[in-house]
Amino acid sequence: MVDVAIVGAGVAGLVAARDLVRDGHDAVVLEARDRVGGRLLNDALPGGEPIEVGGQWVGPGQDAVLALMDELGLSTFPTYDEGRHIAEIGGGRREYTGRIPRLPPATLADIAQGQWRIDRMRRGIPPEAPWTARQASRLDGQTFETWIRRNMRTSGGRAFMRLITQAVFSAEADDLSALWAGFYIAAAGGLDPLIDTTGGAQQDRVSGGSQRIAVALADELGDRVVLGSPVTEIEWEDDSVRLRTPEREVRARRAIIAVPPPLAGRIRYSPGLPGDRDQLVQRMPMGRVIKVNVVYDEPFWRADGFSGQVTSADRPFGVTFDNTPEGGGPGVLVGFLEGRHADVAARVTGAERRARVLADLTAYFGPRAADPVAYIERDWAAEEYSRGCYGAFAAPGTLTRFGPSLRRPVGPLHWAGTETATRWAGYIDGAVESGRRAAREAAGGTAS
Amino acid sequence: MVDVAIVGAGVAGLVAARDLVRDGHDAVVLEARDRVGGRLLNDALPGGEPIEVGGQWVGPGQDAVLALMDELGLSTFPTYDEGRHIAEIGGGRREYTGRIPRLPPATLADIAQGQWRIDRMRRGIPPEAPWTARQASRLDGQTFETWIRRNMRTSGGRAFMRLITQAVFSAEADDLSALWAGFYIAAAGGLDPLIDTTGGAQQDRVSGGSQRIAVALADELGDRVVLGSPVTEIEWEDDSVRLRTPEREVRARRAIIAVPPPLAGRIRYSPGLPGDRDQLVQRMPMGRVIKVNVVYDEPFWRADGFSGQVTSADRPFGVTFDNTPEGGGPGVLVGFLEGRHADVAARVTGAERRARVLADLTAYFGPRAADPVAYIERDWAAEEYSRGCYGAFAAPGTLTRFGPSLRRPVGPLHWAGTETATRWAGYIDGAVESGRRAAREAAGGTAS
Repeated sequence: MVDVAIVGAGVAGLVAARDLVRDGHDAVVLEARDRVGGRLLNDALPGGEPIEVGGQWVGPGQDAVLALMDELGLSTFPTYDEGRHIAEIGGGRREYTGRIPRLPPATLADIAQGQWRIDRMRRGIPPEAPWTARQASRLDGQTFETWIRRNMRTSGGRAFMRLITQAVFSAEADDLSALWAGFYIAAAGGLDPLIDTTGGAQQDRVSGGSQRIAVALADELGDRVVLGSPVTEIEWEDDSVRLRTPEREVRARRAIIAVPPPLAGRIRYSPGLPGDRDQLVQRMPMGRVIKVNVVYDEPFWRADGFSGQVTSADRPFGVTFDNTPEGGGPGVLVGFLEGRHADVAARVTGAERRARVLADLTAYFGPRAADPVAYIERDWAAEEYSRGCYGAFAAPGTLTRFGPSLRRPVGPLHWAGTETATRWAGYIDGAVESGRRAAREAAGGTAS
Repeated sequence: MVDVAIVGAGVAGLVAARDLVRDGHDAVVLEARDRVGGRLLNDALPGGEPIEVGGQWVGPGQDAVLALMDELGLSTFPTYDEGRHIAEIGGGRREYTGRIPRLPPATLADIAQGQWRIDRMRRGIPPEAPWTARQASRLDGQTFETWIRRNMRTSGGRAFMRLITQAVFSAEADDLSALWAGFYIAAAGGLDPLIDTTGGAQQDRVSGGSQRIAVALADELGDRVVLGSPVTEIEWEDDSVRLRTPEREVRARRAIIAVPPPLAGRIRYSPGLPGDRDQLVQRMPMGRVIKVNVVYDEPFWRADGFSGQVTSADRPFGVTFDNTPEGGGPGVLVGFLEGRHADVAARVTGAERRARVLADLTAYFGPRAADPVAYIERDWAAEEYSRGCYGAFAAPGTLTRFGPSLRRPVGPLHWAGTETATRWAGYIDGAVESGRRAAREAAGGTAS
């Protein structure tokens, strides 16, 4: 019998446990996998350097995770952001430096007015309660695709917004409630903070790889973190809870469920959860992304004056960055097959997928891209204990009908995970915020 | 070790089992509840007559269920459809007879042109593969609400379409992919067949109550139907499958999963299912409805010249029918709190909900409606083994990305349930079709 049992040893669950333990409570973290970190996962390059196959970046304004990293003694280094970027949006390849792609003037003007409209929309959405926005009903009744069609005037501008949607949500504009899109942008403080490298969410990398955040937290918690323990059933009453895994049973006064909404919905609850909560998790699916790190002897594109950053609406492997280790070698290009591109890519063999990715990289960076020394990919939709990435999103009609159930406790059950955050939802920062908040609730503090 | 194990003793699963057994195969049906029927459930009126608290109607064109009922020796009787109907759409109460509400001419003209547009849309959607429709991408990228805003010209016409959406899908127009709405209408052969009483899906009732269909099937199957056996885990390989319940394990050559998509997604599969299939079930939530039968000494509204049929966009309890037993008494009015109205109603006490329902009935049918002899309600979203009704729907972006996974077998796993049907999806008829098709597949016939 512990004070609080936590489901999931991602950053949210580990932060919650740490806060509780520091506050004098017993806590145990039950993790389904044989590792901690959830959607953060380090792999190794051929030379042994760590490389992330899951979430990896932090950026300015992400105060919760940056403060945590400070406490844990973890440091950052900047994402490589020098040289020419490549854009393929609305026809043809353009190379450019700085933040603004060199696109046709009509497209650029359209993107500018679109960004202005997005900014106006997101300012009207309170991230702690997007369902109360004045435009909530109207926005939640349409897809973000409908929003794009109504508000963008050029095909290039629409292509840009759809690409941004894939890159930020790993979903299609078709899939998202426009209110969810607006909420997510509001929670990050704007669209630029989401999409920028320097000055934005891709600015910095974690020395040693982002999974170190989770590993460092787990190290502090010691044997309070129990691996290989998928929670399949939770029995609860007003002031106690019993969590079942195939091999053990844990009793606690409270529980924090720190897994993504669709996975929280797959746990069997007895008694069953209220209709509002159940309907919510039926309607928050995960995005879909296959992340690929392609490794070369050296970052040859740098010598050619390229940053390694691509945004292409014309090719499936449409978003890339330089992901070379802090030491400067070997050279690594990281890229993403997002949304529909992930669907298509997951249906072919690994060899065929690799060939397609290398073809796209060769189109961007020339023939040397065709001959990597290693190819490291991760299809997050195929992972039993994630079933998608980067995060869950809300389908239309969901936030206005069921949004308050995202964080509202049910008896002794509290909800954490980056999707429940009010700042930087979907990011590591949001996971930290959510863990802190759930720990306060479970400690008997304010129930939100 | 049986030939085929079936998950779920709703009509789909029972039909599949019956077909398999008749074809010489062993089959076992594992049912979570302590009863058969799934979303079909008989309760009893104070005098003992059966009354349905789940799905209940059959109608012309539903050839699969009508043929099955013939085989089972079950008969129908007509839904009471005489007298004046009441409509509250676009302001004020109107009483009318026949199919067409007596609405303002501009509203009627708008509804007529809207129906014409819906008819044109649905004719372009092949119900066996809606994702191949010429307009598939455009329709799947928008909510049905967006479709309504674009295609209906008057506030009354829009209110009518939203009300129809609630009544047919127990979801909001906000929630549905316009492609799913079009598919569903196509699968029924048009909008009129969905919404009409005489001549449509509400035309006939099952003598003895609709659950008798399931009970008669289960009687034939005998001890092949195992109650109280929720399947929580399915291990599978190419040609065998192992199904686990808390108390037993069943081995089979094949399995048919005959539960709604969101519940199918909550079973733990080892190995995990392909990303396409998993993403699909993450994005097909259940509608939400609270069904209420209100019982009076006699069907007093008939004497007042009313049919008992209401369509109101102004009140939560907005869709009612006369549900009096075949014998003519006691009088029963059945109605539905659908979509958002169910959300709101589920958050108040039972006493408050009853008071609100009776207030609406009194507004429709006068003060005698305030004093029933019994009040029987069922909140399907609160049912652990349904988690919503009438059926699942597809959120935007789902069918075009993941539609083919709706019926495509995964190794030895086959998918049934009314949501997988190509005719009358969402109806008892669709459940029968899906069970037949899954049985053929599992018997080693054509894999669809």
